[in-house]
Amino acid sequence: MPIPVILDCDPGHDDAFNILLAAAHPAVQLLGITTVAGNQTVEKTTLNARRVCTVAGIEGVPIAAGLAGPLHGSGIVAPDIHGESGLDGPGFGEPTVPVDGRDAVTFLRDTLRAHPVPVTLVPTGPLSNIAALLLAHPELAARIERIVLMGGSTERGNRTPAAEFNILADPEAADIVFSNGLPVTMIGLNVSHRALATPDVVARIDALGTPLARLCTDLLTYFGTTYREVFGFPAPPLHDPLTVAHLIDPDLITLVHAPVAIELTGTHTRGATVVDLDGVTGARPNAYVGVDVDVPRFWDLVVDAVRALG
Amino acid sequence: MPIPVILDCDPGHDDAFNILLAAAHPAVQLLGITTVAGNQTVEKTTLNARRVCTVAGIEGVPIAAGLAGPLHGSGIVAPDIHGESGLDGPGFGEPTVPVDGRDAVTFLRDTLRAHPVPVTLVPTGPLSNIAALLLAHPELAARIERIVLMGGSTERGNRTPAAEFNILADPEAADIVFSNGLPVTMIGLNVSHRALATPDVVARIDALGTPLARLCTDLLTYFGTTYREVFGFPAPPLHDPLTVAHLIDPDLITLVHAPVAIELTGTHTRGATVVDLDGVTGARPNAYVGVDVDVPRFWDLVVDAVRALG
Amino acid sequence: MPIPVILDCDPGHDDAFNILLAAAHPAVQLLGITTVAGNQTVEKTTLNARRVCTVAGIEGVPIAAGLAGPLHGSGIVAPDIHGESGLDGPGFGEPTVPVDGRDAVTFLRDTLRAHPVPVTLVPTGPLSNIAALLLAHPELAARIERIVLMGGSTERGNRTPAAEFNILADPEAADIVFSNGLPVTMIGLNVSHRALATPDVVARIDALGTPLARLCTDLLTYFGTTYREVFGFPAPPLHDPLTVAHLIDPDLITLVHAPVAIELTGTHTRGATVVDLDGVTGARPNAYVGVDVDVPRFWDLVVDAVRALG
Amino acid sequence: MPIPVILDCDPGHDDAFNILLAAAHPAVQLLGITTVAGNQTVEKTTLNARRVCTVAGIEGVPIAAGLAGPLHGSGIVAPDIHGESGLDGPGFGEPTVPVDGRDAVTFLRDTLRAHPVPVTLVPTGPLSNIAALLLAHPELAARIERIVLMGGSTERGNRTPAAEFNILADPEAADIVFSNGLPVTMIGLNVSHRALATPDVVARIDALGTPLARLCTDLLTYFGTTYREVFGFPAPPLHDPLTVAHLIDPDLITLVHAPVAIELTGTHTRGATVVDLDGVTGARPNAYVGVDVDVPRFWDLVVDAVRALG
Repeated sequence: MPIPVILDCDPGHDDAFNILLAAAHPAVQLLGITTVAGNQTVEKTTLNARRVCTVAGIEGVPIAAGLAGPLHGSGIVAPDIHGESGLDGPGFGEPTVPVDGRDAVTFLRDTLRAHPVPVTLVPTGPLSNIAALLLAHPELAARIERIVLMGGSTERGNRTPAAEFNILADPEAADIVFSNGLPVTMIGLNVSHRALATPDVVARIDALGTPLARLCTDLLTYFGTTYREVFGFPAPPLHDPLTVAHLIDPDLITLVHAPVAIELTGTHTRGATVVDLDGVTGARPNAYVGVDVDVPRFWDLVVDAVRALG
Repeated sequence: MPIPVILDCDPGHDDAFNILLAAAHPAVQLLGITTVAGNQTVEKTTLNARRVCTVAGIEGVPIAAGLAGPLHGSGIVAPDIHGESGLDGPGFGEPTVPVDGRDAVTFLRDTLRAHPVPVTLVPTGPLSNIAALLLAHPELAARIERIVLMGGSTERGNRTPAAEFNILADPEAADIVFSNGLPVTMIGLNVSHRALATPDVVARIDALGTPLARLCTDLLTYFGTTYREVFGFPAPPLHDPLTVAHLIDPDLITLVHAPVAIELTGTHTRGATVVDLDGVTGARPNAYVGVDVDVPRFWDLVVDAVRALG
Repeated sequence: MPIPVILDCDPGHDDAFNILLAAAHPAVQLLGITTVAGNQTVEKTTLNARRVCTVAGIEGVPIAAGLAGPLHGSGIVAPDIHGESGLDGPGFGEPTVPVDGRDAVTFLRDTLRAHPVPVTLVPTGPLSNIAALLLAHPELAARIERIVLMGGSTERGNRTPAAEFNILADPEAADIVFSNGLPVTMIGLNVSHRALATPDVVARIDALGTPLARLCTDLLTYFGTTYREVFGFPAPPLHDPLTVAHLIDPDLITLVHAPVAIELTGTHTRGATVVDLDGVTGARPNAYVGVDVDVPRFWDLVVDAVRALG
Repeated sequence: MPIPVILDCDPGHDDAFNILLAAAHPAVQLLGITTVAGNQTVEKTTLNARRVCTVAGIEGVPIAAGLAGPLHGSGIVAPDIHGESGLDGPGFGEPTVPVDGRDAVTFLRDTLRAHPVPVTLVPTGPLSNIAALLLAHPELAARIERIVLMGGSTERGNRTPAAEFNILADPEAADIVFSNGLPVTMIGLNVSHRALATPDVVARIDALGTPLARLCTDLLTYFGTTYREVFGFPAPPLHDPLTVAHLIDPDLITLVHAPVAIELTGTHTRGATVVDLDGVTGARPNAYVGVDVDVPRFWDLVVDAVRALG
């Protein structure tokens, strides 16, 4: 039976591939997509979700717009990485896929209540929507199977030396998600920085020869340029699709059960995910943390998804 | 036209009087009561709201149970002040007033959407419910006329030297409420500590001779005992009814428009309401802050309410 | 036997009066004056200490220059209150009193070691010098009789809503002083704001008719103007001389033994002195905190000092 | 001309090797050793410094005892790593090398003032002594050539997930040292965790056949056991001698000039060294940070030092 999933995302180049993966693979039943401010404003990330579904022919999957900023303070966006549109690189036509009339929290509430079995939430942006849901309707925690998120790091951050973008963009939301008691799987930079879309990966996708494949290579080319310029990476890391890839193939990513604390008060470390891999803090494990990935199998899944969507 | 109001409270001795005031006075249209963990657990404060409505004959006012704790971390309760029940002192029978089937956030959402004009929210406990509402459904801010709350202080706190109980119990919620852009009126300890239920006040209520009056004097007697023992007060301060009293009689409390910041990160000051009365911070005013109260007129309102409820 | 005292100060209008009081009263043996950055830069406060001693005929009291800023970060000064010179108002000639060749910490070390009995330190500026001394030479704590300081507040601050200037100017130094285990007496704004140099006080000093009296009234006139403009005070509070006045007349100021914590990490409250007057924190008392003052007796001491210096 | 050096340390197994290296190599002129609380209490680390000098025949090098704890709060020690003595493993006889009568700050002050050229400070424990010196006698900064310290990390910590022991043991001291404007070289765990005393290294030392060599292998054996048990390391990292090794052979360690901030306020990250290797913060570089080490050449220096001391 496929795993019922809601993607909560801020597309975003790597989010786009995660949508493709979730829509394409038979192991996943994509119940909906909620959007959130992150890589760009929520207006732009919502538009981008519609664009991706439109070009990939993903129909019948509701897209609901979520929070326009973090629980506290003002948000951050990442135009240096994802461009002004949040999905710079390819040209997109007018999206035909509509947006759901409900706000993200209402959509999540309705869907969690209505679905016959608990649903897996897959956030790949700031955790604002998920935190707002858990705060407003705490009883719905019982309707969540697990949360598999891209965010944080066991090592250094990216947006600051200590913090990864998604967590830094809403640290209080992350704290709420990690301390809720739900099964949380965290796939962070320490894993995703190994999943580089090297030229041979791009060539494999390009060789598919479809319009979608071409759009994917355009996305990867743009993403590669910004990662090279900002961080000096030889190729761009495709963070977000590691989440759905993990759902499809549970052995793909090596997990350890460990205590993860979200730093809220640090002057220089706000938004850090402090992962106690050595058991030195005495805290109880509250997350399954990715520590390694089978990179070739991951790229096989991505290429297969682009192929499957035709 | 009466002011449409929802009380969000954690009864609590002083909350109880606020319910009476709101139900009794024709200037207020009491649309509902939501409860929250604070003076006691949300189970107990919900039960207490039902008890108060039952003994006062307040019917047809929905009571919806809200959050069981703060947005982050674990909560605090105040059995030293309000007893194990949260409303120690009088005896209560089994309440006949029911609890609404909806959670507080859903009740607030439904009511704000349905009511023809914007509604005034009157929180007299931790601000968890209001914050969760604003996070989950930010568009409903337009349906809130204003927020008139009891909490904080321009001077010293009570639960800690720097922090008042309601704010300390959920500082992040307070931060969300104060920084949302809505018109917030804050009535804090600096005002409420002047509204002491002195023996002559108790005698005036007692002289009403009704069962409700007797229950009220029992509440005040208990409350006076704990305030004397814990804080050395000569008589108990009736904090919460100052909020509805202010709605009924806008001149009762002197307000100043000032910047209020909620301290979230202080080691010894977490939960403090930092009110810039002298304009030394350069911050923009974000709240109307009570700085004085006409105490005799306040007690007239309270006594009248107990009388009116018969 | 007079009390051996070292003043550690940042003159500063009110510091100036404290120097006069310490030099004039036979109950105090003024062993030296150390200066620190605070009301103005340490160059200016050192010059001002020399100016005050010169105009008051105070000779033979070493003046040693101390730290140019706080232990961490950069300092603050108070030209809005004390003017560009730190002692605006009167005209001063070239000071004839010299500066000691030693830095303040070395002077303190040498003096504490050499003096036959433990010495009372009276800091009325930021606590940087005292903290540096205690850190570098912890064994000298045994040579300190007690520390009587002006700083902090049991209520609101002045430089920020939560913090008094001297503590805010070097919170880490204050933390070191208050947590060292030495007997600390804190006289803060809650007391000093009652010691207003009202027109009748100024008239009493003016009536002395001496050049020093005239200089004192010039200081008070200037100080009164800035306190009126910045804080709306009807007359200026003479904070610092309350310290030496307390040494001279121990009954002048009412003290309570209470826990005092220095807030170091607060976003809006850094530098606050959190005084647990109600015993709600469970912390152990670490300071004697002034809570009231006999104002007329205080002014008698000040007027007598100006008279005594001729 | 040899480099004049003062070691400021908390021996400690790896500190012991640093003393040997500094004493043995002709490129270094060891002016003195100051001790500080860290791996163990300052009484124990001072005794250990004397023990190491005694067994290695290092005479005429003053040893001055320093601070018994951090600038703020109470200290931490590391008996789990270094044993109850701070130098567990070998047996030591009664040390014959005396302790200097001066406290560490006074010794540092006297030595810096007296030495004809600026002196290099090499702290390999908590930075309490160095910070106290810089605070009490800021003018002596001009007499310090540079500071080459072992502490911190560009990656994860050891005592907590975010913080390395030396920095965590006195974060405020570290902040003072890193923000003073002096040339600071930081060699942290990211480098030292590559310098593992593998069995072949231990065998090379053992093959020297001297009593000192035997003592060194006993130290490494004990250190290896605790590192294996606590952190699962295959062999123990010899952190501290990388500092003097860097002085002897400047090419041994690859440095980058980068901004380093010390986290003081983090709930989970206090004591972290936040190193901005990617230039994402916009802060100015304030330290030369080790990022790589030529491990074989390092061990050659260590083995040579043990051989040279006979």
